[in-house]
Amino acid sequence: MTECNIMRMDEKIKSFSRFGDTGNGGITRFSLSEEAIQARNEFRSRMEAIGAKVVTDDMANMYATLSGNEDLPAIATGSHLDSVRKGGNYDGVLGVLTAMEVLETIVINKISHRHPITAVVWTNEEGARFEPAMMSSGVITGKFSKEKMLQSEAKDIPGYTFGEALKKSGMAGDEKNRLNAKDYAGLIELHIEQGPVLEYEGSDIGVVEGVCGMINYEFTFKGQADHAGTTPMPFRKDALYAAVKTIQYLHDELDLLDHRLVYTTGKISAHPNIHTIIPDEVKFTLDARHQDPEVLKQVLHIISKIPGTVEKCDVTYQEAWSRKTVSFTPELVDFVEKSAIQMGYSYKKMYSGPGHDAQFVIDMIPTAMIFVPSVDGHSHCELERTDVEHCCKGANVLLKTILMMDQI
Amino acid sequence: MTECNIMRMDEKIKSFSRFGDTGNGGITRFSLSEEAIQARNEFRSRMEAIGAKVVTDDMANMYATLSGNEDLPAIATGSHLDSVRKGGNYDGVLGVLTAMEVLETIVINKISHRHPITAVVWTNEEGARFEPAMMSSGVITGKFSKEKMLQSEAKDIPGYTFGEALKKSGMAGDEKNRLNAKDYAGLIELHIEQGPVLEYEGSDIGVVEGVCGMINYEFTFKGQADHAGTTPMPFRKDALYAAVKTIQYLHDELDLLDHRLVYTTGKISAHPNIHTIIPDEVKFTLDARHQDPEVLKQVLHIISKIPGTVEKCDVTYQEAWSRKTVSFTPELVDFVEKSAIQMGYSYKKMYSGPGHDAQFVIDMIPTAMIFVPSVDGHSHCELERTDVEHCCKGANVLLKTILMMDQI
Repeated sequence: MTECNIMRMDEKIKSFSRFGDTGNGGITRFSLSEEAIQARNEFRSRMEAIGAKVVTDDMANMYATLSGNEDLPAIATGSHLDSVRKGGNYDGVLGVLTAMEVLETIVINKISHRHPITAVVWTNEEGARFEPAMMSSGVITGKFSKEKMLQSEAKDIPGYTFGEALKKSGMAGDEKNRLNAKDYAGLIELHIEQGPVLEYEGSDIGVVEGVCGMINYEFTFKGQADHAGTTPMPFRKDALYAAVKTIQYLHDELDLLDHRLVYTTGKISAHPNIHTIIPDEVKFTLDARHQDPEVLKQVLHIISKIPGTVEKCDVTYQEAWSRKTVSFTPELVDFVEKSAIQMGYSYKKMYSGPGHDAQFVIDMIPTAMIFVPSVDGHSHCELERTDVEHCCKGANVLLKTILMMDQI
Repeated sequence: MTECNIMRMDEKIKSFSRFGDTGNGGITRFSLSEEAIQARNEFRSRMEAIGAKVVTDDMANMYATLSGNEDLPAIATGSHLDSVRKGGNYDGVLGVLTAMEVLETIVINKISHRHPITAVVWTNEEGARFEPAMMSSGVITGKFSKEKMLQSEAKDIPGYTFGEALKKSGMAGDEKNRLNAKDYAGLIELHIEQGPVLEYEGSDIGVVEGVCGMINYEFTFKGQADHAGTTPMPFRKDALYAAVKTIQYLHDELDLLDHRLVYTTGKISAHPNIHTIIPDEVKFTLDARHQDPEVLKQVLHIISKIPGTVEKCDVTYQEAWSRKTVSFTPELVDFVEKSAIQMGYSYKKMYSGPGHDAQFVIDMIPTAMIFVPSVDGHSHCELERTDVEHCCKGANVLLKTILMMDQI
């Protein structure tokens, strides 16, 4: 049974970690930055070295294709090479490196395949410098307007747009090179879990059934700014205390729902935020995710029961954004599971909490994902790590899955 | 019975509201700013016009003195002319305007007095541009080091110090002009209440017995930043939720103490404050004030019962600052009360929540304060207002109190 090579896997991780190295074990590699272009050029030269044909589309998404024995649509696999500020060497990157390793393994071991096999690099998945996240998979699958995306302004340089960065990179190719339903049979994305579950349960592989639906709400509490030293307690309209009571209410109620529900208040602000003034306005967010839309409906019902006035403060809220649950193609999910079983790896069927490019691609062609464990669940930070053994196990499941897809 | 003049009072309020007028009913008049110097020059010229001798000390505190019939120490009254950003036309200012009105009333009505009577303007009470608050009364009463104060940097211009602003103003005078225990017999400061109690209870005058003691604590909760979409609830160390539970605990416990206790969480911050990341660090403040040190001890006891770990997050806290309860001179407090009674005004004996220059002066000479009602309790904002009738009643109580002091 041909397998990927752990030494090659390790070398790839180390080599790519140079591009945007922060010196603290992580990388800062914003999309289309100089560091990202170095990483892309490394991808290109390594893929060309094994005989793959590399093209880019108009969003600078990269496609490195090994031709197949028959005139069939390609099987694609890949992820992204950009990172958040002070991110790690695995989020996204590992999906590209395992794709490269799979193609190399196929070439080196002269594994015969009917379909072309394509390693893909998506442009600007993180949205760390140019919003939104998953920009370029979003454009080619019709989720975002390309024109609007080209206008997206850099967070650090006012007036400098994604379109200008794209032009400057020289990496934009032809629109006809985009991934599409005619030329591609399916896509598998390997990614780190970014959470602690696989490690905690001792599983090598996450067989990803889909991406959790989510809702994101912003709550606003309006009270009255008064002097902390002069306003007796019964006279107060303390927007922060109203917010505190509401966060506690949400915890109390949401904890009664399905245990797989995750919900987070990550952001809070108080105005004027001075220790001697009672806050007159407090805002906080609620992010809630679950694979079952019925559970998210229950979350909405709990939100709807929040009174219009809490502690004499006016309460308003609105959906900031939401995402429906995405289910991956059952046949491909089965292939991933079978591959893990055949390799003798422990695995867990699970839903992804975070979003990934694959969730856009599923609307166009059959798609599935493979997760590998994140040490201590860390991600989007310099501590982000996955043991090279797990990286290699992931690559093996990816290879096997692609070869199964190649049979159909 | 000679009284102050409501038309003159009204004219003064309107005239001084021009210096730093925001156009929205308020003023921005930082200490030693051009606007503040205009107001100070107006004070000087009006006081000189009624025959007062005006001097400044080395901190630019101003003293306008009507000489008395006998060789006795002076009776002082006054407050400050500086404001917070977008502050009102009453906080501090009214204490200066009523002092001016009292001196004018004495001169116009040729009221004979044994002691010299001095209207005082303190420099930089608010600390809005140069910290700390009550800077110059603090320097002359030995609370703050003058040298350190001269180094206090402007919040808006790095490197620009209070000392430079003082020099530029040309208003610094001789150190020997400072208010002192030999040349001054006592001080009365009239101020707006800055709270809703007098208005709510229908009282014209607050007879201020002292300034509440206060404690100010900062709490820090350290958790673990993890992805909102990947971290099951039992794995979390959510610093914000730990903070929410602690704020609720503080409310539950502090509400059981004396009803005059006021406590406030005015400031809160979360890190990294991103809606998709579980906060790893949250800080909040607690400000608590009460006139009885025993009650503040109970507050400290409640704080001490907070566990070192809440929701798996480490909890630490420290005193940011504190102030002991200040009691004003009983004889002068009695004079204020008697004056209100003799004028037929309703009044309430009370403690001040906020700090005032008078709380420093009490350590040097006999001191008391008079409060007048704040409409809707507003202060430190453009809505800050006191009816001119109440301003005039305050001036009358001030006049009467000074004339009582003049007898001893």
